[in-house]
Amino acid sequence: MSTRTAYTRSLDLKNGVVEMSHGGGGRAMSQLIEQLFGDAFANDILAQGNDQAAFELPRGKVVMSTDSFVISPLFFPGGNIGNLAVHGTVNDVALSGGQPLYLTAGFILEEGFPLKDLKTIVDSMAHAAHEAGVYIVTGDTKVVERGHGDGVYINTTGIGVITDDIHISGERARPGDKILINGYVGDHGVAIMSLREGLGFEASVQSDCASLNGLIGDMVKAVPDIHVMRDPTRGGLAATLNEIARQSGVGMMLNEPDIPIRDQVRGACEILGLDPLYVANEGKLLAICPEDQAETLLHAMQAHPLGKQAAIIGSVIEDANSFVQLKTGFGGTRVVDWIAGEQLPRIC
Amino acid sequence: MSTRTAYTRSLDLKNGVVEMSHGGGGRAMSQLIEQLFGDAFANDILAQGNDQAAFELPRGKVVMSTDSFVISPLFFPGGNIGNLAVHGTVNDVALSGGQPLYLTAGFILEEGFPLKDLKTIVDSMAHAAHEAGVYIVTGDTKVVERGHGDGVYINTTGIGVITDDIHISGERARPGDKILINGYVGDHGVAIMSLREGLGFEASVQSDCASLNGLIGDMVKAVPDIHVMRDPTRGGLAATLNEIARQSGVGMMLNEPDIPIRDQVRGACEILGLDPLYVANEGKLLAICPEDQAETLLHAMQAHPLGKQAAIIGSVIEDANSFVQLKTGFGGTRVVDWIAGEQLPRIC
Repeated sequence: MSTRTAYTRSLDLKNGVVEMSHGGGGRAMSQLIEQLFGDAFANDILAQGNDQAAFELPRGKVVMSTDSFVISPLFFPGGNIGNLAVHGTVNDVALSGGQPLYLTAGFILEEGFPLKDLKTIVDSMAHAAHEAGVYIVTGDTKVVERGHGDGVYINTTGIGVITDDIHISGERARPGDKILINGYVGDHGVAIMSLREGLGFEASVQSDCASLNGLIGDMVKAVPDIHVMRDPTRGGLAATLNEIARQSGVGMMLNEPDIPIRDQVRGACEILGLDPLYVANEGKLLAICPEDQAETLLHAMQAHPLGKQAAIIGSVIEDANSFVQLKTGFGGTRVVDWIAGEQLPRIC
Repeated sequence: MSTRTAYTRSLDLKNGVVEMSHGGGGRAMSQLIEQLFGDAFANDILAQGNDQAAFELPRGKVVMSTDSFVISPLFFPGGNIGNLAVHGTVNDVALSGGQPLYLTAGFILEEGFPLKDLKTIVDSMAHAAHEAGVYIVTGDTKVVERGHGDGVYINTTGIGVITDDIHISGERARPGDKILINGYVGDHGVAIMSLREGLGFEASVQSDCASLNGLIGDMVKAVPDIHVMRDPTRGGLAATLNEIARQSGVGMMLNEPDIPIRDQVRGACEILGLDPLYVANEGKLLAICPEDQAETLLHAMQAHPLGKQAAIIGSVIEDANSFVQLKTGFGGTRVVDWIAGEQLPRIC
């Protein structure tokens, strides 16, 4: 047991590493929380300093979403696990058509992880939260022994509010509806995989990870009757559209030439043996809306910086089998099935 | 890519193990979620099947709390990581004086973990949630490679509502206030440590892990002006009271003979070299209230099954140094300092 003066000692953010004591509930943990997390995330609610955050919410339906992030590597072109953890949960809340307001942050740290790197990650979270207009209001820190983690895992859980006139949900896709996306497909997955495989695409392909709540706000304002919105993360466009098709009991027909894919991503996918339709995105959303409002929605998307390359990529059709199909550039069609297994492990 | 019929294949809950594909966003993940989580947690909000849950909340201030659980071993006398993850977050929400309503569940699974054991854990979560009257409304599943996890890590984040007349917070302890606890100290930590060290106390000491929201409801009804409530988990009574003393700018004087400790726990602590005041609890709460309401609160606690051994264990005093002190059975006093490091790693 140390002397009481130890309390005021500063964390060594230059050469220090995570120690088991940082998760022990004592003074070292309190130091880490105050000097690293408290400092970066500072806000009035977090400052309550209790094991829970208390706050008022505007009236409306409450939306809640959770995501654990285990991406490897932790740092990648275009972001790191910290801002990814904010973007991902902000997006999952916002895709309901609601306004994300507050996040929690739960860290599982591996013994020996450099505090310097943890600070970079935490600062990125704070920056991403600030940009998205959300507050990190409570958190938790656990430490596991060397070899029982992978540096840092982060859980974020978000809460927001939707007004009563919005009813966006996966079972609302109807035959005739149009399917839109806000830009290039596959950037995140290719950025990570090329880094992992040492393929040297890092310079050209960056993760698209971004908080989409601003874009979504504009979209919902332009077309309040959007039927479905979802982000094509793990499993990419293919998994997400198959999920929605199944949930709504409909089919989908995509038009391959209309799907925006960067040349570098197409090239990297060929080398890596990946299909861009199955590759994860972290700053993309799929929206499905009535045909007669599709152009209005498209223009609202294209007017936002995160929707400049937005496109209408297909239509919802009747199909008792809930198949997602693709009309290729050569006029044929093929089924875009779910992947049975994993294509890209630990992509988020 | 497998054939579409694979979709309906059942999980092998007898001999199957977690595979990387269970986190890949494709069909295997969907199977795991539907057949294991969806089945155990079934409720109308979870059944929305979106990446976020939407629900109405009763009026009042919203409370939110998050906790990641990394306890080792996963199964222990009196519980497992699953019900612990529910109890812990239910308690953190309830300790605000509010009513916990909804939980999220985020799983980080290690490749190779038996699905049979995962099912036991998930069923325990479902049972604990049912008993506490809360619903698990949305979740997330990630899989990490063998050697990068430790079977299962679980994050739960909880949300609840407090009525406007309740103001329980760590900075409200005032000199003269009484300090109460709802029962025996140290059971959880000793149950885990004796199991880990193979000391054979397992038969006699069980973890106290329990959801305290029922007890807390009765306490708040009896004494709406409780000043502070907090659960002495990691770091035990010592860490929690030091935190509160510091937050409120007060000292505390505990009376050692009044602190309920089981003989077996005292004995195990001697063998393990632990001080019971620093040992984690998972079904205990500390309450601080005005002196003139302490007896009323005590009786309310003792009337509840989880408060039968409740006791008044000390008083809040003036102290510019915010020391927590202990009057021993022999009439002396000693300072109960924070531990600087960890006493018991991965205890929750």
